[in-house]
Order: sequence, then C-alpha cells, then structure tokens
Amino acid sequence: MKLQSLLTEAGTHIVLVVMDGLGGFADAEYDTELEEANTPNLDQLAAEGIVGLVQPVAPGITPGSGPGHLALFGYDPTEYELGRGILSATGVEFDLRAGDVAARGNLALLDDGGNVSDRRAGRIADDAAQAIVDALNAQVEVDGVEVFFRHIASHRVLVVLRGEGLDPRVADLDPQRTGVPPKDPQPLDPAAQRTADVLRTLDKAVRAVLSDHPADALLLRGFDTLHELPSFADLYGLRAATVAIYPMYRGVAKVCGMDTLPRPSGLDEQVAAMREHWNDYDYFFLHHKKPDEAGHDGDRPGKIAGIEALDAVVPDIVALEPDVLVVSGDHSSPTQMSAHSWHPVPTIMWGPLVGRDNVTTFGERACAQGALGQRPTRELMPLMLAAAGRLAKYGA
Amino acid sequence: MKLQSLLTEAGTHIVLVVMDGLGGFADAEYDTELEEANTPNLDQLAAEGIVGLVQPVAPGITPGSGPGHLALFGYDPTEYELGRGILSATGVEFDLRAGDVAARGNLALLDDGGNVSDRRAGRIADDAAQAIVDALNAQVEVDGVEVFFRHIASHRVLVVLRGEGLDPRVADLDPQRTGVPPKDPQPLDPAAQRTADVLRTLDKAVRAVLSDHPADALLLRGFDTLHELPSFADLYGLRAATVAIYPMYRGVAKVCGMDTLPRPSGLDEQVAAMREHWNDYDYFFLHHKKPDEAGHDGDRPGKIAGIEALDAVVPDIVALEPDVLVVSGDHSSPTQMSAHSWHPVPTIMWGPLVGRDNVTTFGERACAQGALGQRPTRELMPLMLAAAGRLAKYGA
Repeated sequence: MKLQSLLTEAGTHIVLVVMDGLGGFADAEYDTELEEANTPNLDQLAAEGIVGLVQPVAPGITPGSGPGHLALFGYDPTEYELGRGILSATGVEFDLRAGDVAARGNLALLDDGGNVSDRRAGRIADDAAQAIVDALNAQVEVDGVEVFFRHIASHRVLVVLRGEGLDPRVADLDPQRTGVPPKDPQPLDPAAQRTADVLRTLDKAVRAVLSDHPADALLLRGFDTLHELPSFADLYGLRAATVAIYPMYRGVAKVCGMDTLPRPSGLDEQVAAMREHWNDYDYFFLHHKKPDEAGHDGDRPGKIAGIEALDAVVPDIVALEPDVLVVSGDHSSPTQMSAHSWHPVPTIMWGPLVGRDNVTTFGERACAQGALGQRPTRELMPLMLAAAGRLAKYGA
Repeated sequence: MKLQSLLTEAGTHIVLVVMDGLGGFADAEYDTELEEANTPNLDQLAAEGIVGLVQPVAPGITPGSGPGHLALFGYDPTEYELGRGILSATGVEFDLRAGDVAARGNLALLDDGGNVSDRRAGRIADDAAQAIVDALNAQVEVDGVEVFFRHIASHRVLVVLRGEGLDPRVADLDPQRTGVPPKDPQPLDPAAQRTADVLRTLDKAVRAVLSDHPADALLLRGFDTLHELPSFADLYGLRAATVAIYPMYRGVAKVCGMDTLPRPSGLDEQVAAMREHWNDYDYFFLHHKKPDEAGHDGDRPGKIAGIEALDAVVPDIVALEPDVLVVSGDHSSPTQMSAHSWHPVPTIMWGPLVGRDNVTTFGERACAQGALGQRPTRELMPLMLAAAGRLAKYGA
C-alpha cells in the first residue's frame, strides 16, 4: 500500500518540533533530564494529547543526526543514507550538482613526525579558519578537477570535487585519533582509483598552502555524492519548510525537498518565521539544538535548561493553531554518556483529532505508559498526515 | 544495515539468565506462578532496570525449546530451524560432523499385520532400551555407511548416518499414529534417493536385531544435517560460554558457537563456573530448567519453588558486576496447561546504562507496564550489545 495513493487535499498545518538529543535515562542517582526539567507547557500538551517512545533506526542502534531526522521525516533510515559530506554541503547551502563528491574536512595540527597532534587545530577561531579557506580556494589547483572549499564552523570545512568520473567510494583520510599520520587515500572500489589519486594530489596542495597558516592538514572523511531522495511534495503532497538554525539540519530538510526559511537566530525567531509564513506551507520543521549540545558535554543543568527554553515557546506554537503538533527528538543524548545513545525518544502528538491517553506529564517513564506506544520513529509521519486529515480511507 | 558493521570492542560482560518455561497466565483462581513466587532479588532488578514482555517466534505461536533459545540468542527462529535429529544429537552430546544425517527414532511395537500398535513400545524402561541400543550398535551394518545409535530416554533413540553423499531430505518414516505400517522411505528431493535406499536397508537390519528384543521397529523422523549457524563470534564479536546443565541447551549453545563449560550440578555451581571463567568470556548463558519441568507436570508449587531457587542466586550473579544482565525465558509453560504456550515471557534488563522504568516487581502484569515494552525476543540481543557499549553509532 502506497501512502501516495491515499493523499488528499486539506488546508491543514503540521508542526514537527525536534529537540535534538532529547531522550535520556534514569539511574540510581537521577531522574532523566526531561523528567527533572520544569515543563508546564509540554506537560499540558502531554495531558491533552498522546505520548510514547520512538526508536529512530532499530532496537539498540544509536543514530547519527542524519538517520534520526530522516526517520522523523518518514523515511526508512536504513534505506536512505546521507554521508557526512552531503550533510555538510547542504548544511552550508552549497549548490551541490549530480556527480560532485563532497567530504567533511577537519583543520588539524601535525607534530614534527607528521602524526596528528590535534584533530581540531586548537578549535581554531572562525575568522582564522575563514582566512585559511579563502587561501585554499585561491591557491589550490588540481588538474582536471574543480575544487571548492567552504568554511562550516571552527575547524570544520566542506570540500567538494567536481569533474568527470569521480567516485565517492574512497576510505576516510581522517584517522579519527591522534598520534598517527593522516591516512593515504584508498579506493574502496576499483572505480574510485582516480578519485583516490586526485585526493593524494589535493592533500599535497592543501598542505603547501597551510604551511603559512595555523593548521597543518585537512583531514577528510565521509566522501559521498548527491543521492536524490523522494521529496516531501512527492511523498506526502506537502509544501514543507524548515526554520532550523544550524546548517546541517537545514541541509537534511533541503535534501528532503523542504524550503529553508531565512536563518533565525533563536527560538523566538524560529516561531516568528513560522508565523510569518504560516499560510505559505502545510508543514514546518523546527529544530532545537541545545539539549544535544549539552548532552554531548555531559552538562545536565544545560540540557535541562535547553528543554525548558523550548517549553517556554510552546504557547506561541500552539497559538498558531496547528492541526497536528509533534514534539520529539532525533535520538537520545544522555548526559551520563556525553554521547548519542540508543535509548528510545519521548514523544508527544497533539491536535484536535489525535486523542488523549492517561499520561499528564512529559518524561521518559511517563511516555512508556502512553497510547502512542513504543514504535519506529518513521511511523510518526503517517500518523501526523492522518490527524491532519490528509489520508483518505483505504479500501471500500 | 548489518549489526556487524557497528560492532566495537569493549571489555564488558553480558549475562543471559534463561528460566525455562518462565511465563504463565493469571486466571480467576490464581495469580501467575512468577507473581506468586517470593522473589525479592528479582524484584530489585526490576526496580533498578526495565521490564517487558517478549515473544519468541510470533503472536500466538508456541515455541519449542530450539526456537525459544535461538530467539534469545538474537537469531530469527523462523529463518534458522534446528531439526529434531540435530537437537537430539547435540542433546546427548554426540559429536556430529558435517554431512552426517541425524534422526530421532521411537522404539515401537507392531501388530501381526505389521501395523504400529504402540509408538512407544509400552514406554519401555531405560535399561531395556539401552540394551536394545547396544545390540543395534553391535549388530546393524549397512554397506558404505556408518550407523550410530544412542539412547536418549525411554523409547527415544538417536540415529546418525555417516558417509559420502547422504542427504537429509527424506520424509519421516514414523507414521505418527497407530493402525498403519511404518512408512517406506521416500526422498523429498532426487538427490536424497540414495539416502532413502540406505534407510530401507537400515530398517530391515534393525528389525532383524529387534526380533530378539521387546520392540519391533524403530520409527525414524526429523531427518536433518548439521547446519552451520553464524556464530556468536562472527555475529556479535563475543566470546560466549554456557553454564547450562541439560544436554539439549548445551547443544543449542554449541550450535551457536558458544563454549560449553564443564557441566555444573546446580545453580550454585553454575554461578561458580561463571565466576571462575569471568575474564575468559564476554557473554554467559545460564539455563535453569526447573520452572519448565514443573510447568509440564502442572506442578504449581514446584514451578514457584523453581523460580524462587533462581531468585536466591541473583545476588551472586550481581556480585560479578555484569554490564548487562537479562532474566527471561525461552517460552511460557503455564501450569494450567501442563505444556509450552504462546503467552509472552516476562523479562528484566538491568545494568548501569539500561535505564529504569516505574515497575518495581517482576511479574507478567508488572512487565506489561514496563519500558522494555512488548517486543520480539530476538530484539533483546542488540539491546544487550548496546547497553554493553558494543555498538557504534549508525550514520553521521
């Protein structure tokens, strides 16, 4: 059964709020961050809607941000994979073309023996890194291939190769640890031999330029090429837009065919952008980064504060009168682990046709009791479409 | 997405405790056996971890011990089947080799017309049956094939054929009812024609020997050959061992590539064996038979006592400091039914990274409220690997 065959027109609005890294776990010492957070507005949504726990990829699997978001958008994240290069390219709104090979690069320091001593070049400042990127764009030349460098943030750089016969099946050059040299480019398929050779030449040219700058090497990883994903318009008949702030999440949205509204500076501007464009779109994706950032840092008060900041704008979102509002996360980021994790993600679904369960607070243990149950994240999308009146009856 | 591609090294320990036939159901008269049992230590695990109900094969399907254990080990029990012959062979620790064809045999009585009159030879006593097996091993000869007979219990005998070009695709010779003759060997595939011919010769030779004994025929069924299952080492990167006592469970573990530690005599020795070999393995499988035995007998107090016996050693298992401890069962065996059943199996998952839910006791109805939810048994394995820090992140 194809969802497309059931799509029906409706002048309704769906809002997806993603708190990045939302989930956590309780232990002998603490409740979860979400359980401890003071969230009167989210609790009210929970009381008026249904809650559950969702699993982005599969039981026990810790998702990266790409698979976590694809699942929220209704895609099977084991079927559609997005390399880091592609996410970085879309993230800085680089106009990637078919056949381009993109990679994520880290500006790094090497010691006298040529081994990596700092994978982030001392977390180089944005202006110093931008100067390096400008120099690379001006001075690096590789025969038969166009090379583009774009600064992402701090030590993070996007590299794009454009030319005939390039192939992304090349192993990462970034060894992902210190004390060892950058890896020599190795094709993972014979067809990628020329791309590996190009990368070897590129690496030399880059190092020559860097000799005048506060970085020694550019460690590349996540080679990928643009895969066409079916779009939100084709899959769901939705005019969709994102008010995400961070490039990577704007990028994932764009790959799925969403419009990217002018970049807001914070939660209030994100909600304001939705309000301003409310009648231009059927679906809005709001991304809130703070819980994941604090989760990575093991910063429990920070994660709690990040959740509470989102809670504070819930009344403004509700005031837009969405027909379906979902609050969820792309994965869990427990502060006990300072990392992403496999724990399922607490989720609220709210709207006039959604129904209610007996749960009246938003938290992991409360969600384990909810009527949304435990289910794969990507099942949220058809449920949202249904509650927005956008799916016709199946069968007579 | 293959789990193998995410495996990562970790010096962590996983313990799986299987209470055979653990689950039951409540009725107008009684709580379940587990609910009535006094289990302070299991209750503490439940309070400190998460609980749920697991389903070994599929909704409504009553599992045999083979599929029940394969699911606990993370295999799809509808994809990997272990024939009765193979389970019988591993069960008596017969050293089955690649290419051997094994079958289960019943010593049976025939009437004057050659029809089966008793499929169990009057539930022949063990010593009489052992004498028959000895005579068969001494006297039965078939050209070009080695034949091995092993006594299992009462009328049950293992038969193994060893030789070139044997094929297990032969229909059962056991008609599984009385009043009809044993079936003539029929190949289910042309490649098994020779094996069918061998079995016809074997049947004559067996009957000739039996003419001096209190049985008339050996009814064979469940022809199978040793299938190589992917091993725990290959699938999960785990050094795995079992401290099971009963041959059949040691056999299933062995088929999955686990080491079988010297046979313990009871629960205390099982835990002691884990303690002794703690640093030699990453994964231990402890099997506890008593709840299922009592379940088969409809012995409610016996099943309760069996559960309480396991509860008593929980502190010794916890003292080993496993990173993940799961307590579950291979299937349910309600004493009301004196048989295996399809009812889902109550399960605890416990460990520092597992998290907690609101459930504080171990029982079927408590588990229905737990954060582990209701899920296929085989999902436990990736969750255990995750909580043991053995799965890397999926995607960027």
